[in-house]
Amino acid sequence: MSNKGLLFIVSGPAGSGKGTVVKELVDSHESIELSVSATTRTPRPGEINGVHYHFITRDEFENRIKNGEILEYTTYCDNYYGTPLKEVKQALAKGKDIILEIEVDGAMQVKKKMRGAVTIMLTPPDGKTLEMRLRSRGTEADDVIRWRLDRAKDELALMPKYDYSVVNEDGKAKECAELIYNIIKAEHAKTKHTKKIIKKFI
Amino acid sequence: MSNKGLLFIVSGPAGSGKGTVVKELVDSHESIELSVSATTRTPRPGEINGVHYHFITRDEFENRIKNGEILEYTTYCDNYYGTPLKEVKQALAKGKDIILEIEVDGAMQVKKKMRGAVTIMLTPPDGKTLEMRLRSRGTEADDVIRWRLDRAKDELALMPKYDYSVVNEDGKAKECAELIYNIIKAEHAKTKHTKKIIKKFI
Repeated sequence: MSNKGLLFIVSGPAGSGKGTVVKELVDSHESIELSVSATTRTPRPGEINGVHYHFITRDEFENRIKNGEILEYTTYCDNYYGTPLKEVKQALAKGKDIILEIEVDGAMQVKKKMRGAVTIMLTPPDGKTLEMRLRSRGTEADDVIRWRLDRAKDELALMPKYDYSVVNEDGKAKECAELIYNIIKAEHAKTKHTKKIIKKFI
Repeated sequence: MSNKGLLFIVSGPAGSGKGTVVKELVDSHESIELSVSATTRTPRPGEINGVHYHFITRDEFENRIKNGEILEYTTYCDNYYGTPLKEVKQALAKGKDIILEIEVDGAMQVKKKMRGAVTIMLTPPDGKTLEMRLRSRGTEADDVIRWRLDRAKDELALMPKYDYSVVNEDGKAKECAELIYNIIKAEHAKTKHTKKIIKKFI
């Protein structure tokens, strides 16, 4: 196993259960950390700066983009959301594996900048289950759900650009997190990270 | 996960503990099978045809090579040793993951013929441990041990040609087998094997 941490990107459409699975993964393995995003939106009640997000100003965010300090970013409802590069690099150097929970566009941005990044797409088992999950939230209008389903199809169509895909069956978040952990362990065992052992025989 | 089995090659120098680790892996996972080699050498007392080896004649072996029925082979002490292609293909089609426990040359032959084959190099933790393991067998002369050590170095130098490498620490065969199992599960989750899930959303 390499001593340096590795960077993993977990993407998945709304209804894939991404949040639950990533929480399970991070909570059960001390060596794995979830990257905290930076955003320009206002904190919601209960949100803590540096825990849920790094809350920064628009000027600060744009400066960081200009200085190459943002690994990937997107805009949503007129606010920036992005991954601060420095924190990621520091954690990797300390030997932590970092999870970025980001969307497909961001994932492709990261892949270009950090070639070693490993991409994992989380998927619901099928379209019917996805629809049921979205409807069971009971908070969204029919046209929003239809829009989310269409968007999910578009996102899943990009799955071949990802290294791995993991199906999240109903009630199987733990198993799903464990499979992602298997992937993390396997990636550490790749010879590109372990070549230095050869020196121990010369 | 793909339904078809995948092919894994485990190599490792004498003293890497390869036999113990592979036995542990196969014994603890029903979905994983060890490929039985064919050989032209005479069975030793207790060896069962079809279990330890497929014992076949020299003519038969050479015919099979000619007909492309041998996936890889080598010669040792004037006898052929090789992997019968048909058995491997049948087991893969049944959804079994197949382990070939073969040497570096054979591994490279297989990689050329079956591009999906995944290669894993098992290594001792360092040169000193390797030497101690070889000496502790107490059956070999000093010059044989020295020859094995040199050979191990040559084999380990080819590690970068392998996809993965796994260190087998003393007394850790179980953990080692488990890491190989992690690799097997991760390989099944690669998008090249899982793309068909996209159809479930269209």
